[in-house]
Amino acid sequence: MLLDDIHGPHDLKRLNDRQLDQLASEIRQFIIEKTSEYGGHLASNLGVVDLTIGLYRALDLPNDKIVWDVGHQAYTHKILSGRKDNFDGLRQYHGMSGFPKRSESPYDCFGTGHSSTSISAGLGIAAARDIKGENYTVVSVIGDGALTGGLAYEGLNNASRMHKNFIIVLNDNNMSISQNVGGISKYLNGLRSAKGYNRLKVDVGGVLLKVPFVGETVVRQIQQAKKSLKQLVIPGMFFEDMGITYLGPIDGHNIKEVERTINEAKQIDHAVIVHVLTQKGKGYKPAEKYPSRYHGVSPFDVHSGKPLSHKGKTYTEFFSDKICELAKSNKKIVGITAAMPDGTGLTKFSHEFPNRFFDVGIAEQHAVTCAAGMASNGLKPVIAVYSSFLQRAYDQIVHDVCLQKLPVVFCIDRAGLVGSDGETHQGIFDYSFLTSIPHMSVMAPKNAIELGMMMEFAMNYNLPISIRYPRGVAYQGLSEYAAPIEYGRSEMIHKGEKIALLAAGSMVSTALHIREKALNKGFDLTLVNARFIKPVDTSMLDLLASDHEVIVTLEENVKQGGFGIQVEAYIHENHPEVKIVTVTLPDNYVEHGDVTKLREGLGIDSESIMRLLSEKGIIDFD
Amino acid sequence: MLLDDIHGPHDLKRLNDRQLDQLASEIRQFIIEKTSEYGGHLASNLGVVDLTIGLYRALDLPNDKIVWDVGHQAYTHKILSGRKDNFDGLRQYHGMSGFPKRSESPYDCFGTGHSSTSISAGLGIAAARDIKGENYTVVSVIGDGALTGGLAYEGLNNASRMHKNFIIVLNDNNMSISQNVGGISKYLNGLRSAKGYNRLKVDVGGVLLKVPFVGETVVRQIQQAKKSLKQLVIPGMFFEDMGITYLGPIDGHNIKEVERTINEAKQIDHAVIVHVLTQKGKGYKPAEKYPSRYHGVSPFDVHSGKPLSHKGKTYTEFFSDKICELAKSNKKIVGITAAMPDGTGLTKFSHEFPNRFFDVGIAEQHAVTCAAGMASNGLKPVIAVYSSFLQRAYDQIVHDVCLQKLPVVFCIDRAGLVGSDGETHQGIFDYSFLTSIPHMSVMAPKNAIELGMMMEFAMNYNLPISIRYPRGVAYQGLSEYAAPIEYGRSEMIHKGEKIALLAAGSMVSTALHIREKALNKGFDLTLVNARFIKPVDTSMLDLLASDHEVIVTLEENVKQGGFGIQVEAYIHENHPEVKIVTVTLPDNYVEHGDVTKLREGLGIDSESIMRLLSEKGIIDFD
Repeated sequence: MLLDDIHGPHDLKRLNDRQLDQLASEIRQFIIEKTSEYGGHLASNLGVVDLTIGLYRALDLPNDKIVWDVGHQAYTHKILSGRKDNFDGLRQYHGMSGFPKRSESPYDCFGTGHSSTSISAGLGIAAARDIKGENYTVVSVIGDGALTGGLAYEGLNNASRMHKNFIIVLNDNNMSISQNVGGISKYLNGLRSAKGYNRLKVDVGGVLLKVPFVGETVVRQIQQAKKSLKQLVIPGMFFEDMGITYLGPIDGHNIKEVERTINEAKQIDHAVIVHVLTQKGKGYKPAEKYPSRYHGVSPFDVHSGKPLSHKGKTYTEFFSDKICELAKSNKKIVGITAAMPDGTGLTKFSHEFPNRFFDVGIAEQHAVTCAAGMASNGLKPVIAVYSSFLQRAYDQIVHDVCLQKLPVVFCIDRAGLVGSDGETHQGIFDYSFLTSIPHMSVMAPKNAIELGMMMEFAMNYNLPISIRYPRGVAYQGLSEYAAPIEYGRSEMIHKGEKIALLAAGSMVSTALHIREKALNKGFDLTLVNARFIKPVDTSMLDLLASDHEVIVTLEENVKQGGFGIQVEAYIHENHPEVKIVTVTLPDNYVEHGDVTKLREGLGIDSESIMRLLSEKGIIDFD
Repeated sequence: MLLDDIHGPHDLKRLNDRQLDQLASEIRQFIIEKTSEYGGHLASNLGVVDLTIGLYRALDLPNDKIVWDVGHQAYTHKILSGRKDNFDGLRQYHGMSGFPKRSESPYDCFGTGHSSTSISAGLGIAAARDIKGENYTVVSVIGDGALTGGLAYEGLNNASRMHKNFIIVLNDNNMSISQNVGGISKYLNGLRSAKGYNRLKVDVGGVLLKVPFVGETVVRQIQQAKKSLKQLVIPGMFFEDMGITYLGPIDGHNIKEVERTINEAKQIDHAVIVHVLTQKGKGYKPAEKYPSRYHGVSPFDVHSGKPLSHKGKTYTEFFSDKICELAKSNKKIVGITAAMPDGTGLTKFSHEFPNRFFDVGIAEQHAVTCAAGMASNGLKPVIAVYSSFLQRAYDQIVHDVCLQKLPVVFCIDRAGLVGSDGETHQGIFDYSFLTSIPHMSVMAPKNAIELGMMMEFAMNYNLPISIRYPRGVAYQGLSEYAAPIEYGRSEMIHKGEKIALLAAGSMVSTALHIREKALNKGFDLTLVNARFIKPVDTSMLDLLASDHEVIVTLEENVKQGGFGIQVEAYIHENHPEVKIVTVTLPDNYVEHGDVTKLREGLGIDSESIMRLLSEKGIIDFD
């Protein structure tokens, strides 16, 4: 194995062409093995093996810097920078992250996880280099999918003003996580089919002479003229017009061509785009065929490509079915996703209601403002989005949706702890950023049935409203508790005495478990399902305060801006004699790892909470 | 006066060319008069008078829809849609808003205030139209400045997929609020100088035959070739490549040309951009000469163009001086603004430290992520930004700055109530969205001197930190209280008894006033300046709790996620016997109007607070 002798970038430089190809092949095998065992991002990593090797050959790392956009394609980078052995434990609790992290290696100059940040970050790094009078190469590697995000464009717009070298590698696989959409994709399509920079041959006369300049309407004339001229235009003219040199397209699976072009790009005294064509999933047949399905994988069987374990039905799947059911009878419902039809469960909807389905690309801001526009004109938009990605549209929720009281429904998946994707993907702030916005209501279901009930409620509610639910298999217990959703009202599950557990969303099942344990000890705890995080059900709080000594709130969110702190404030003002214990996530980011272990580590699993209640002298569980 | 007979769009249609020009002139005079009296947006409104008349002639309003990006250029629109008489009271409390508002008129189909939303909103409105099977024209009017915002680009990217008519009017004055920056500006410059669509004449042979195809390096060859070809390229090819038809550029001050082109644009069965050239400030010499200075104005003398009143030195001005002072000795400091060098006070810095100054365009996301990149590579970036616009970079603060613990300094101007700009511009959420983010610290100064001290502190602090201060004249009282800033520590101003006022930032002077009034009544209240909103100074809370019965918190922020609620939670858990009163803004958007009146209306002026304390039986002020 060549791979066994690769401990850093220098080990690459002595390999010949044949060895480089062999190394690429070994790395692919390694990535397939490790992701099959631990799960992870497969297709995107397989796509950039050769590109990464080429970059490592052309650059002097870690003196030179690479910013990996989204970061889910950095496995080869991690392998080549001496972290191969850390792949045992990939994405596991206390193991190696699946994303670049500054704290992990000097080769990871900037952490990533969300899309479209790399150009801006790279520009900042390069600007610092120039101000400090230093001299090295800064490269941002961005996918064509990430290029649909507005931040990437803001970065491009500013890159044009660089007076020193700055390299943007456009890793173009004609896919984001799912299929790519929109005008920029069309534009890149044009470039892909164009002849490369080193094969520049333009049939000048032939094309131009066909341009009609007389007759017909003016508009039609121009359209014709432009169509003809397009075939003539040299690739990347838009970038060039912005002041960014364009090189490409080149074959991203040809290591030597990548190396050569990056070396050329290093010579340019301003920003340069190197357009590299790659294939997502390259080298693993199932992933080449279904790159979207093999984007992020659970442990799978390498031979068949099938997931090892079949778990129960997820919240995403329940959402998927319910939205289709609701849309059948309500023609106003439209479904919107930001490049995540599979992940958010809108794929089925997209097949059943293609004219009412909108995949806007990795463009959460647009998703929300466009939804506001739709709602202002009579539709009922449902935005299906991951909690951590909705953060990218905070102002659009404040400014376009809630200020105008528009009835947009936010179905927020991957809320709370998400597990192995780690810090950038945990959905632990949504209560905080949503509940401080006027006119926004926020719900969280205790189980799968309640998710459906809340969706139904939301469709008939005429103001902005959010439903947040966790990643993974849906809780299906407590199904006998299915009282109709009433606005702002919580649900009494068990009326006990002295101590009440007031739990939000995913924490209801945890609270139920605590209740059962306490019952064994002879304590009959009250259990309430909050249902609404905003507004808080103060009538229930009054009721609980009237005959309880302690209320314990439970939530999967940071404390500040969350659920419990609202309860605490209300109780302090109205029933100061009642003690409040708030179980929340700490004021910190949460690393990657198995959700069960994370919950234990963070003290929000039932055992930890019982220990806490014992320590506080509230219930003696010992 | 023709204007007296204009009560709606229909009144425009009977005017001849000469009358239209006269009307435009009368409207300009009207706008100059009203803004000189009430303040408002002048230069942007003067720029689009003819464009708006042309749109009103070509469209059937309000059946057709216009979305005005940013909304600060909608005065002519308001005049022509029957709201001329409401200009008495423009931007005044309970008077007409300076921005489009759905609640104000059926002609305002979508509210705006922040930049770059119009394409997305317009697309949503058009999508709803098509799904409902309706038939009318939807137009988004966006400036070239707003086009530097990523959301606009996300909108463009999606506009390319429209299968029905959708018109984007690009109002190009070669300025955003200040000067325009970046690649897209360069690109538009190219279009501006190009020959218009109705003057299409391309000297084909001449240009092309000069293209060199042999010799030199490949890269150099292409660069040469592209430069030559550029002159040949038909305007708007990038938009065309994205699938959006491009018409223009046309003269935005030629009403008939605007009308004719919009009528042509209506015939196109997909998205179309109409590129219109206008002059900001057109028709008022001082504004033509200094469009940035006359962007948003206070009441001024029409003849001289000078502001009527000179007030004291503003927080912005104190910031401006201090950042320059600090940057002299600390070479790592860089200043970043998102198209607001004047408004945020960075203009002086830009002159003194041009190489360390970055105006990134209307691109708050990029500003923050780029700053994170700079900080990751050893610089000390200071982002000067308005509170309400920082909302647009929430995820970048979470994901790029705070997660990586990067020492970026946020100097947040226009925090709290801003007055006449109204709902979209009030800075009343920043405590909420910032304090829930791990690793972020938040300060608020009581007066001008403390702003400087906090800036000094922030420059030496090695984690993310924010300073938020209000719009307008800086408070300069309490200058004798200037103990050094200590991390996380508040400042005792007066040690009294029983009742403590714990005030944040701008509310310290209000609390001082209450203290003085109470002293007259024989109550010696304690007064504490919070200084830190995060972390809350719990040692001070312990101290206050030890010998006070009531703590009153005061802040200019909504309650949820704010300052007081943190105090309340801590006190409830540790000193439940102490009563807390939280003075905050209500859970609602705040309309436009004079700040003094707004504070009274919202109950956060000293009189209202005293009344509240009397009602609660805490202090008898009567």
